[in-house]
Amino acid sequence: MKIESVDLFYLSMPEVTTAADGSQDALVVRVRAGGLVGWGECEAAPLPSIAAFVCPMSHGACRPVSDAVLGERVEDASDIYRIAAKIEYDSMDLLQAPHVWSGIEMALWDLLGKARDVPVWHLLGYRANHRKTPYASVLFGADPQETLRAAQAIRDKGFLAAKFGWAPFGDSLAGDEAHVDAAREGLGPDAVLLVDAGQVFGADVAAAQARLPALARNGVTFLEEPFHGSAFAAYGELASLSGAVAIAGGEAAHNAFMAENLIAFGKVGVIQIDCGRIGGIGPAKRVADFAAAHGVRYLNHTFTSNLALSASLQPFAGVEAFDLCEYPAGLQPLARDLTRQSFEIGSDGRIAAPDAPGLGMDVDEAVLSAYGVDVEIRVGGRVLYTTPGI
Amino acid sequence: MKIESVDLFYLSMPEVTTAADGSQDALVVRVRAGGLVGWGECEAAPLPSIAAFVCPMSHGACRPVSDAVLGERVEDASDIYRIAAKIEYDSMDLLQAPHVWSGIEMALWDLLGKARDVPVWHLLGYRANHRKTPYASVLFGADPQETLRAAQAIRDKGFLAAKFGWAPFGDSLAGDEAHVDAAREGLGPDAVLLVDAGQVFGADVAAAQARLPALARNGVTFLEEPFHGSAFAAYGELASLSGAVAIAGGEAAHNAFMAENLIAFGKVGVIQIDCGRIGGIGPAKRVADFAAAHGVRYLNHTFTSNLALSASLQPFAGVEAFDLCEYPAGLQPLARDLTRQSFEIGSDGRIAAPDAPGLGMDVDEAVLSAYGVDVEIRVGGRVLYTTPGI
Repeated sequence: MKIESVDLFYLSMPEVTTAADGSQDALVVRVRAGGLVGWGECEAAPLPSIAAFVCPMSHGACRPVSDAVLGERVEDASDIYRIAAKIEYDSMDLLQAPHVWSGIEMALWDLLGKARDVPVWHLLGYRANHRKTPYASVLFGADPQETLRAAQAIRDKGFLAAKFGWAPFGDSLAGDEAHVDAAREGLGPDAVLLVDAGQVFGADVAAAQARLPALARNGVTFLEEPFHGSAFAAYGELASLSGAVAIAGGEAAHNAFMAENLIAFGKVGVIQIDCGRIGGIGPAKRVADFAAAHGVRYLNHTFTSNLALSASLQPFAGVEAFDLCEYPAGLQPLARDLTRQSFEIGSDGRIAAPDAPGLGMDVDEAVLSAYGVDVEIRVGGRVLYTTPGI
Repeated sequence: MKIESVDLFYLSMPEVTTAADGSQDALVVRVRAGGLVGWGECEAAPLPSIAAFVCPMSHGACRPVSDAVLGERVEDASDIYRIAAKIEYDSMDLLQAPHVWSGIEMALWDLLGKARDVPVWHLLGYRANHRKTPYASVLFGADPQETLRAAQAIRDKGFLAAKFGWAPFGDSLAGDEAHVDAAREGLGPDAVLLVDAGQVFGADVAAAQARLPALARNGVTFLEEPFHGSAFAAYGELASLSGAVAIAGGEAAHNAFMAENLIAFGKVGVIQIDCGRIGGIGPAKRVADFAAAHGVRYLNHTFTSNLALSASLQPFAGVEAFDLCEYPAGLQPLARDLTRQSFEIGSDGRIAAPDAPGLGMDVDEAVLSAYGVDVEIRVGGRVLYTTPGI
């Protein structure tokens, strides 16, 4: 199959707020090859990612991502890895490149799965598709009462696990303790409770450490991203102090090495990979293998559509021990409605990657129209990008 | 001073080739505040960096860089650090953000220096400006004869040090040995010889190790970027094997933590910072301090204009022991002519950061016209960017 076209669709809710809610816009990728269509989604910032695909070459190590993709042949997984390696080298100095490539890479796996009539997890070498317990991933309430009610609502929907994150966590020690207590109270004693600090402590180990007693007494399974994504020394120091509360991170990784370094040098117990940033499904699978070899739990980072969730489940679908997954529980309509399929939680409280070919997600093209943002980029008198037709 | 405007100028040579020559295009930044003008330069990929400045917000942790900059007050160095911290947090998920912020940050230091009538290195706390030995930074020739002639030409120009880099280095062991031998022969026995592998070995320690004997017998001071910028384990392993040949890296760092990690975990002996990528002069100074505390040599990575070279010299101007600096010796005309001042090599074979206020570089606005590339970006019917007037 020859890659005939790569179309990038910028979608947005009519109003975007400062909430840490990644489902307010999207960059959806459609790839056509061999009479088939594959779909993927980039995370985050649509406009710079579009620019990374179409920009003029700056020099030999700073080429646009389109150069390595358009017209290439994809017959096998090895072709996807070959294109990825070319981008890693030829677009070395183009920082945004992994974000746009991530969505294209997903779409290529989707295409290849459809061509072979097998799910992507099968192409990755897995022969079983293990069900995962989804944790409802939501933001903390504005006050502990709101967090309590959100936790109760999650419990009432049948979730066995939940993660609360971001502001106002980090504002004050007493406030944080009250929010975590409220989350536990609302979820009940048996549910898995997770906390996402959203990097709020920078590299301040003492500030993060001060929250550990409240996390421990509420049986929090892991504390996510207490620090800047690259503050490995701080991660390692906190991990040595955190006892039963594991330290988690990894969503910021934009290549597999960065995630492996967070395991090897940051000593995290949980590695969380966003397939829409790390370069797609292939590098995420590499990190899952590395995590398994190092006794670290792998799970997905996903705060966008069910298309992104399907892609993010593939790299660890076949590992029974990696039995938790992130599940964005408050998607904006554009993300919720993007795909005809969604993930229904079974009577066992679990979900699984689709057993359908590719990523198993059909994109509703009406959503591309309804939320589409018109973009035009002109450079030196030439139109380098205009919103593609549906 | 209130930041009144930030103007981004995309310059390009009429023809851009696949040579690893970063001076073929440029993104020049002009900041106006308090009746003064400051200048900076971003590295690399102008179009995605422009997009990172003007893009619509995706969510609270993925805001355009312009949101944190326009209208802000800058009275003191602490204001620059405050804006940097805001971007680091609020643009956390906008991968390209550090590249565009880098040029703006330089321009803010330039402005502040002009307002105070002191050089930037003085604002950074240095009270002396130590001269550095520039190494002519050039690409390897197509064959060893071309490398030999390039080395002779560099020696004849009076340089005491030279760095050869990139393709064809890495193509074959015998070829690499011949190129390094030729470089040493051309430079003569006394000059400092450096080699830049341009990440060609990925994470293959054995391949890099095979080159060490030829580097050692030619007295090569350091081998730069043998591996992917994040392959810390490979760096650390090679560093333990490389004897008198130091291992160098760091240009890929887009925040100070990444460079500190390369020192702490990658065990490099030389850390090379590009102020146009790491977030500007402030984080580069932090890395210089970290390097000094860890017995590691700091130097600049610069392959663009003399404006970028001035910015890159500031963070280590005051450290006498950091006595080497990179000096791009084959600049394209747009980069060579961008500033009215250039760096003349003194009779001592050395150069220094300017003692003039700010960065001490006046931009020739005729060059902005001559090499300017017209860009227009429209999103949702609104023009978000158009090439600013001069």
